[in-house]
This record gives sequence, C-alpha cells and structure tokens, in this order.
Amino acid sequence: MTAPVSFGRKPLPSGFIDDVRAVAGKRLQLGEAIRLQHGSSETHYDPVLPDAVVFAHSTEEVAALVRLCVAHDVPIIPFGAGTSLEGNTTPIHGGLTIDLGEMNAILAVNQEDFDCTVQAGVRREQLNEYLRDQGLFFPIDPGANATIGGMASTRASGTNAVRYGTMREAVLSLQVVTPDGRIIRTARRARKSAAGYDLTRLMIGAEGTLGIITEITLRLHGIPEAISSAVCSFDTLKGAVDTVVQSIQLAVPVARIEILDDSQMRASNAYSKLNYPETTTLFFEFHGSERYVQEQVETVRELAGQNGGGAFLWSNLPEERSKLWKARHEAYYAAIAQRPGAVGWTTDVCVPISRLAQCIVETKHDLAGSSVPSTIVGHVGDGNFHVIFAIDPGRPEEMTQVEAINERLITRALAMDGTCTGEHGIGIGKQRHLADELGDAIDMMRLIKRTIDPKNLFNPGKIFQL
Amino acid sequence: MTAPVSFGRKPLPSGFIDDVRAVAGKRLQLGEAIRLQHGSSETHYDPVLPDAVVFAHSTEEVAALVRLCVAHDVPIIPFGAGTSLEGNTTPIHGGLTIDLGEMNAILAVNQEDFDCTVQAGVRREQLNEYLRDQGLFFPIDPGANATIGGMASTRASGTNAVRYGTMREAVLSLQVVTPDGRIIRTARRARKSAAGYDLTRLMIGAEGTLGIITEITLRLHGIPEAISSAVCSFDTLKGAVDTVVQSIQLAVPVARIEILDDSQMRASNAYSKLNYPETTTLFFEFHGSERYVQEQVETVRELAGQNGGGAFLWSNLPEERSKLWKARHEAYYAAIAQRPGAVGWTTDVCVPISRLAQCIVETKHDLAGSSVPSTIVGHVGDGNFHVIFAIDPGRPEEMTQVEAINERLITRALAMDGTCTGEHGIGIGKQRHLADELGDAIDMMRLIKRTIDPKNLFNPGKIFQL
Repeated sequence: MTAPVSFGRKPLPSGFIDDVRAVAGKRLQLGEAIRLQHGSSETHYDPVLPDAVVFAHSTEEVAALVRLCVAHDVPIIPFGAGTSLEGNTTPIHGGLTIDLGEMNAILAVNQEDFDCTVQAGVRREQLNEYLRDQGLFFPIDPGANATIGGMASTRASGTNAVRYGTMREAVLSLQVVTPDGRIIRTARRARKSAAGYDLTRLMIGAEGTLGIITEITLRLHGIPEAISSAVCSFDTLKGAVDTVVQSIQLAVPVARIEILDDSQMRASNAYSKLNYPETTTLFFEFHGSERYVQEQVETVRELAGQNGGGAFLWSNLPEERSKLWKARHEAYYAAIAQRPGAVGWTTDVCVPISRLAQCIVETKHDLAGSSVPSTIVGHVGDGNFHVIFAIDPGRPEEMTQVEAINERLITRALAMDGTCTGEHGIGIGKQRHLADELGDAIDMMRLIKRTIDPKNLFNPGKIFQL
Repeated sequence: MTAPVSFGRKPLPSGFIDDVRAVAGKRLQLGEAIRLQHGSSETHYDPVLPDAVVFAHSTEEVAALVRLCVAHDVPIIPFGAGTSLEGNTTPIHGGLTIDLGEMNAILAVNQEDFDCTVQAGVRREQLNEYLRDQGLFFPIDPGANATIGGMASTRASGTNAVRYGTMREAVLSLQVVTPDGRIIRTARRARKSAAGYDLTRLMIGAEGTLGIITEITLRLHGIPEAISSAVCSFDTLKGAVDTVVQSIQLAVPVARIEILDDSQMRASNAYSKLNYPETTTLFFEFHGSERYVQEQVETVRELAGQNGGGAFLWSNLPEERSKLWKARHEAYYAAIAQRPGAVGWTTDVCVPISRLAQCIVETKHDLAGSSVPSTIVGHVGDGNFHVIFAIDPGRPEEMTQVEAINERLITRALAMDGTCTGEHGIGIGKQRHLADELGDAIDMMRLIKRTIDPKNLFNPGKIFQL
C-alpha cells in the first residue's frame, strides 16, 4: 500500500478530550479499532489514525465540536461511510474525525415537489427504500452504499448520471457548519434561484475542506412507469464504445449505459456467479413510459447491431434487474478478488465523448503491457471510466508500475480536454494532476480556503496544499 | 424612476484615462450618450453614468484593463446587452464599464460532444442561428436577446429551463479574468468532474463581482425531431396553474410551460396584434420524437380539460411557432406599452411547485387592490413567475405602492421556502431580501468577495454591501 504524504501531527492539546467528552459523552471514542476504521477507506493508501472519533447526533453538536477544534487548533475530518477512493477522509494530520453515520434521519419528503431533506449520514439505499412507497427515487448511484453527505462532499455521480446528472444537479440546498462554528443554509427549496453566490455548489465537491455538511435537500424523480435493463456483448472494445457514443449523439435518454471490459467480465462472472460471455459488454437501463422505453430500445439495439453487438439479454422484473446491477455494483470487489490478498487501486478520468473510444482503446493497450491484473469499467455515457488494479502488496514494483500507468492515463485524458477525476475527487491522490488540469485557477481555490478556514483545520491537506 | 442607492464616487485618478487609451485606443469612449447607454438597463432605476466605457476586443485586453483599474483603484463593471432588470450593471460608484458586446466570436462548436465555446459578447439568438445548420441548439432563453456572458453572470434561465435547466446546468467551463489580472479557466470540457472547488458555478450568478467572464463553454442539445407549440385559455387562474403543477408532478418533460394572466393577454393582444381570448392562458412547447411528443400532448391536454382549459391552438410550423413565442417574448414590452410613457418594473420570485397556485392567486388578489396596471407572466413549470408594473412616472405614490406590493410578494415567496429572485439576480434591488432569504450565509459570500476582490472594485455595491 502507499503511505500517504504526511506532514506530521501535533499531540492533542491538554483539556481538549475532556471538552469533547462534555459535548459527546460516550460517543467520543479513543479505542484503536475505531480509530483504525476511521483512518481507512476503500483506497490503496495506508491507514492514518485520527486521534479521536466522535459519533455526532445533531447539527448543533457538530457546531459545538467545530468550535472546540478551532479553539484548540485541532484538525477536524468529516466521515460518512468510508467508501471514498482517493484518501479523501484519511486524517493525514491526525485530529478529530466526526462520524456523521448516526445522523441518518430522513427529515422531510415533499412528494408534490419531488424533493426531500435528509441528514448527512443517510445512506443512498436507505433513502431509496424509504421513498419507494411514495413512487419516488433518488437517482445518484456511485455503486457503494455511500452517505448522502459524503456523496455531496465528493460530487459523486455514477451509473445514472448520464440521464439524471450528478450531485451537482441533485442538491437543492445544504445545511453546513462553517469553520466559524455557525450553521448556515445555502439556499431555499425553490427549483432555481439567482440569489447571490452559489454556496451550494461551492460546498459540493469541497471534500469537507470548507465546512461540514449536516443536512441535504435533494431533488427526486418519479419512479418511471417502465424500466428495462439489458446486457449486450460486443466483438470489440471499440464497437461497444462506439455504440455508447452514437447513442449519446442521437440524444437517446438512456438512464444507464455502462461498459465492462473482457477482464472485468471474467472477474465478475467468477465473483458474482454469472455466465455472461467474457468479452466487452454494455449494461443498459431505459426509463420512461412503455412506449417511450420501446422507442429508446429500438434505437440502441440497431446501433449495437451495427457495431458488432450480440443479442440483448433483457431483465424487466425488479429482482432480475437487481441481480444484473448487483454484478455491476460489485465490479470493484470482483476485480480485486481475482487475485487473493491483492490491494485494490481504482482511478477514474472523464473526457469529451468524441474522444472516449480513443482514450479507452489507448488505455487498454497500455494496460496490456503490465503484469498487474486490471479491468476497465465505466459510466461511459458521460465519457467517464475507471481502471481497477489488483496489486500484490508483496511486490512494491507493481505499485510503481501502476503509478506510471495512472500518470499516462491522466496525461492522456488531459490532452483530450478531459479531467483527472470524473467522480472520485482529488483527495490525497490527484493533487498534482489538479494543478496540471486547472493551473492558476487553483490559486483562487486556495484564496477561498484560506479565508473560510484560516487555520487550515478542515480536512487539511486535501485537494491542494496551501 | 427610482434613484439607486449611491455611495458617492471619486474622480478618476490622473493618468488613468491615458493609460486606458494606450490599451484600447479609440475604443475608449467618454461621450455622454455612450456613458448614458451604459448607465441604463431595462430597469426602473435611474441611470448612473460610468466615467468611461471601453469596447473590449480580447481577453488579454480585458486583463490589461483590469490591472489598470486595480492599480488606480477604479471600479470596473462588465456590460453585455444591458437587458438586466435589477440594476445589475448600473455603475453606482462610477468607474470604467467594459462593454464585451464586440467580443462576439463563436470560437468552436464540437458537434459530436454537443458543446461550443463562445466569447462573452455572443448573443443567444446569434448563437442559435449559427448552430441551426448543425442540428444543435442552445436552450436557455430569458426572453431578451442577452449576451451569453451576461446570462452566465446573472444565472439566467427563462422559458426552456423546466426541461433543459438554467445557466447553472448549461455551462461546462468559463474563462475568467480575475481581480489580480490573471486569466483562468475554471474547468475542462468533460461533462462532469470532481476536480476541486466548483469555480464555474461560483462565477455563475456572481454578477461580475468576482471577475469578468470572457469565454464560456456551453452544453448544447440536438434540435428535436418534433416540436409542437400550443396555446390554451382557461376559465380561471387556478385552473391554469393546477394544470402546470399536475403536468410537472406527472413528470411530463414539457420543454416550455408559460402562464400569461388575463391582464397580460389583453396587453399582448394589443401590442403583438393577436386575438387570443383575454383570460389566463398557458403557452406550451413539446420536444421529442413524433411519437413521444404526441404522448406528452395527450397527457397535458387531458389535464387541461379537467382544469377548465379550452381547445389547444396548435403551431407546428416554425414560422407559426415563432409568432406564438414572439408574443411571449414581447410580454414585458407589451405590459408597459399599455400605458403610454410608463416606466416598467418587473420583479420575480420562485417557489416550490406545490405552493405555486396559492402564491400566484394571493399575489393576483394583492394586485387587484392597486391602481397601477400590472400583469403576471411566468415560467411556471419551475415555480417561477414575474409581476410587471407599468408605473406613471408623474405619480411618485405609484412607486411607493409597487414597492409595498413587491415587499409582500417576496415575503409571501420566502414564507413558502421560495427565493426572492428566480432569475433576475440581486443587483441593487433585492439586497435586503437576500438577507431575509439566506441570513448568515451572506457572511460567507462577503468573505469570498473580500478575499478575491480585496479593493472592492468589481461591480461594487451589487448583491450585498461589504
């Protein structure tokens, strides 16, 4: 595993722990197991332990803890489900991790307005189970059963983004505890507003460096009248990608259009006990009225046929669909499981759709030159794809190889006017690439960070160095 | 007219004009007529003249002018088409207005990616004419033929927002001249990204207070296979609004759904030479495949019938559609023209859709108690509507009446968890209401403003007071 860059840590000031205990009682935890859990995530970085963990129960409590941390100069790191991939919650300077997982109440659902307000610790699957009876759903699906607060903080997206957008589009308003210990609401519940700076979008993707998100008001969607999922295998990688690109260019409103390459299909068949053909495969989902879904399907099936796609295997019943998407959701774990004891490393880039075929084909070619097992999986309707590596921790040269492949991947994506991360965030891992991507614009981010968090206590060392 | 709050102005420092002339030559203008034009906009505020106007021709030139203004402590105000409605470009502290209208090149259209990059002075109608042959269109339509830079700066939306979103969703990336005189790009051309703070969204709606937008990369859409427009008159205001609300709640993806009340229909018939029934009327537009448009139409027609709507008058040919929408686009001018010599004042609010019927009905009732002619027009699919007043400038008591109605309107919208402005921005006019709406969150906006523009030179005095 990779040791995250560390800038040392100061011992906690005397009295701090007593002050925190006065706020949180037994929900302050100092045991090593709990700290290890909160110093780890689904990342290839070594864990770094926070000094203490608090399981917060209210926004007011978070505000009280923030005021304590600021008074004592102690770093403060918000934590959701621990499913981030770039070391986004790793407490590299130590400090207090605030676990928001127990703030998991669904506060309001406004069925007529297609919105809801939840606490930051609500998980996306929990929310969708709650909403189902009301005919509503929350579409953003990054795969992992992440918290809504964590998803907002990393600007998550996932399989449905091609149709429904990302967290950037899904959030109407946030409640945030700011570094001065105040509680603000960034917007009202109206669908749109031209009232002042867009603090909502500033907080989305800030990875907890500008404050702690405690409540989120989300746009919801009606469960479509008809949902159809299908799987289609292709002769070639390029044929599959071209089918995606052409579907998008014809503006077919597919809800999901996902690629799994041949290696991933092998891994997924083994892990999820399936027997799909082990060639590049597209997973589709179509939403709409019966008629409209039929119309979308006809168009995409024709494109697939022209590009070397085989028959469409359909799943229309909810339980069949769940099985199909379970395989897709388990892709990361499947890719790592193909090599027992392996450490997983996944990276993601996103490019304009016209460059996607070239970007994936060149990447696949690059991967073929490495001895590290790897797969390609992607939300290709957005131009976004992942490479997942299964690294033998006993062979340090593999980590070096993967680092070099990742460098080349990001260089390739940036040369195509793409981004170094479509949805995982910058965290620890991609700070240099952010500089390559946006240049001087990062100085404006630094200015904002310094003025909002002058002591650099909020998830310090993430996104960029000050 | 209303005198905007003024904070005085300092004379230009000696040498400044010569320095600007060295950059811009004859494109520096000091004549009173040009200054008056740039001190005015489609607002009820008295004009305030800038000290000088420059017609910029390049981003580098804007950067040079910014550096001069900062070195000399001179306020700097970006100006597009002058169609804003809340005094957003009024140079209340004097200074240099930079007119970007001649930076009107369409720099690139990436047909396969459904995006384009334009200079800030490109007008939306110009862009759509240019795109038409490529089968693409840019959907954001605030009515006025505004510049894309101005639309980004006020987070504009308009008639198509219910289906296609606002400038918040339409912009992929911006080129901005920052107050330190540097040129930054806020994002790459990928559809989505999790790379750092969302500076794109921070600049959208900042009304030029954080820098000057010089280039915009926009998402485009394919011209739909079928477009159908229709007009439908209703027995009652409530019946019309209920039709809108029910259409949205059934998730019918109408492209446009606009309301014009009885007063507006009278004014529009007179001004645009039409003869629609003079009762509350909905204007619709449906986009999609032939079949899908038909399906949408059937649903909405059934809802309208249940709510006291009459026959749908269809316009399927482009020229008929243009005529229909011309009447809608001219609504503001029509409302003012009903009273010769009148000064126009239009305000807008946006509320959750479940509260829309009540908000409009109560507002209509309030308007009935005033002697000032007024109309209601709205992008009701978003919960957003406008009141347009035609004020006799010879009767100062009318301005007082309208101010009180506007206060009550905003109080009503905020009580419904709505916003004081759906799309016009804060400008000079709604600063107090912004405070009512967002409370302490404005302090975070102030922090950002102070750190990015420490001398308070960029469109000073707008959105909030420092």
